[in-house]
Amino acid sequence: MILENTHQRSITRTADGKGARILDQRRLPWEIVWVELRSARDAEIAIREMWTRGAPLIGATAAYGLAMALAQDGSDASLDAAFTLLAEARPTAVNLRWALEQVAEAVRPLAPGDRAHAAFARADAICDEDVALNKAIGEHGLALLRDLHARHPDRPLNILTHCNAGWLATVDYGTATAPIYLAHDAGIPVHVWVDETRPRNQGALLTAFELAGHGVPHTVIADNAGGHLMMRGQVDAVIVGTDRVTANGDVCNKIGTYLKALAAHDNAVPFYVALPYTTFDANTATGADIPIEEREQAEVTHVTGEGGRIRVTASSAANPAFDVTPARLVTGYLTERGLLDRI
Amino acid sequence: MILENTHQRSITRTADGKGARILDQRRLPWEIVWVELRSARDAEIAIREMWTRGAPLIGATAAYGLAMALAQDGSDASLDAAFTLLAEARPTAVNLRWALEQVAEAVRPLAPGDRAHAAFARADAICDEDVALNKAIGEHGLALLRDLHARHPDRPLNILTHCNAGWLATVDYGTATAPIYLAHDAGIPVHVWVDETRPRNQGALLTAFELAGHGVPHTVIADNAGGHLMMRGQVDAVIVGTDRVTANGDVCNKIGTYLKALAAHDNAVPFYVALPYTTFDANTATGADIPIEEREQAEVTHVTGEGGRIRVTASSAANPAFDVTPARLVTGYLTERGLLDRI
Repeated sequence: MILENTHQRSITRTADGKGARILDQRRLPWEIVWVELRSARDAEIAIREMWTRGAPLIGATAAYGLAMALAQDGSDASLDAAFTLLAEARPTAVNLRWALEQVAEAVRPLAPGDRAHAAFARADAICDEDVALNKAIGEHGLALLRDLHARHPDRPLNILTHCNAGWLATVDYGTATAPIYLAHDAGIPVHVWVDETRPRNQGALLTAFELAGHGVPHTVIADNAGGHLMMRGQVDAVIVGTDRVTANGDVCNKIGTYLKALAAHDNAVPFYVALPYTTFDANTATGADIPIEEREQAEVTHVTGEGGRIRVTASSAANPAFDVTPARLVTGYLTERGLLDRI
Repeated sequence: MILENTHQRSITRTADGKGARILDQRRLPWEIVWVELRSARDAEIAIREMWTRGAPLIGATAAYGLAMALAQDGSDASLDAAFTLLAEARPTAVNLRWALEQVAEAVRPLAPGDRAHAAFARADAICDEDVALNKAIGEHGLALLRDLHARHPDRPLNILTHCNAGWLATVDYGTATAPIYLAHDAGIPVHVWVDETRPRNQGALLTAFELAGHGVPHTVIADNAGGHLMMRGQVDAVIVGTDRVTANGDVCNKIGTYLKALAAHDNAVPFYVALPYTTFDANTATGADIPIEEREQAEVTHVTGEGGRIRVTASSAANPAFDVTPARLVTGYLTERGLLDRI
């Protein structure tokens, strides 16, 4: 990721090595504010209140949160309490629990006094691995986008994406955006349709910010517009990230993803889901078995932007945060192992 | 329509009979402000800048606008100039041109001095007819909703609607909402999922305001949420209005309607389009032949609500205002003549 002209990661340890440093994503793109998390409780709040978000990045943040808890108190009771606290901060993404289990398994055999050091090391490794996974996804995706562009070499390649599955959702590169960044760097003329992604506007705020920082041409659209653009031949492919892919290949992702998958299918536009293996949940049979987080209605009744927060309806609202795209609508799963027809 | 505890129409002549009185819908639901239109230019601005909107109501407003032009100058040149000015205020809805043609045909055989009076009379008749059409749509729709509710009499009937096809889009009752109001009045327990309808939020602002005024239970949702609700069995039917139905039955309506039609089809939820004959365009073969209005990008990059207007992305945007739902996705057309399988 390139931020303020420097290649950085979206999460690192603090300078003293005892905490984690993240961007407060609620203030992007208007302000770039780094915050330091100093306890498991800090990490839990940052995840729950979405200072940080995105399935892989939530996992990394939770891993550091568990390490911070063990630095304060290395006992089994402390480990279990922090694990539960962090696991319940968000219910839908599978990476959160996966990362916590990685850390817990690494430290449980150790003496309480040795656990914090090992936990931080495991969290660092989770971050390094996430970067490597996303880079691999990007390289396989680059080959795919090169092929798609070769079909219409005379015009830009139009990619539509929903929500933010970029480096702000991971430690670096992003999942859905990694192929886009690599294609742009390789000279393929990519243009991205960025779904606004109400109610929290992660597309309009975060994905557009990332793409602008990297110099990738892009246009923000209302979530309602994608089907029309596909019908009129203005979308060559859809690439989205995911919070969880179940054993049968169903894709849980930000609310509204399912509608774009339906439109892609109806217009023979390929629909790709980018994910590392850490987002695959072999223990859940189908998307119908995933708990869908219902978030507070204020996210719908109010909108936050530059200049503050305004109310946009006088009525009450419902706010399911994710939906399930059935496997039958997915053209391919873009993973670190390559493009897979089925998962 | 019930507003401030009084049954009213959304457009009437001014007290002196020489102008037209409309609500400034840009200020709803926060303020109820009536404005008086005193010239064709006033009417054109009110239509173009969406003080008033909705296919039937645009037609009625334009009809009064033409009458006002003729009151100033009854010549052919004045008639033609005002016709063109008003016809070009919005490009997509067919009712606008239809209403203008109704007035022009009525007055063209008359002496210039007699035209204004006849034009106002024709505009009044267009309004009266619109009320009668919507009431008839509502009565046919009531029978339909009664049947749907009888399938699950133990729970509320959940209707999803997109944008505003209510009395704020017509002279009274609305098209898509007429069945809802009549069902509610008849004691059928209706609950409405109201699509926010970005970028202009007509659902969150206008439809929710109407339903609240009439006491109909309703919940605002992000445009992204409808597919998920249908998949989880929480929608019994979708009812939308339309700006134009073409000869083959394709439905042009507010951007995003197509996505809801796809989701309804995928989940076997019936998808109904409510329209009076004035919205049917036999002269256009298919939806692909309809010009789709591209509105200013500020509608996407900014959001207006209570407390002002804020910017919600730092990037640029595209803003197609309508899309086309293919006839194959429509379960039925709810018209003043009854529920039709095809148009």
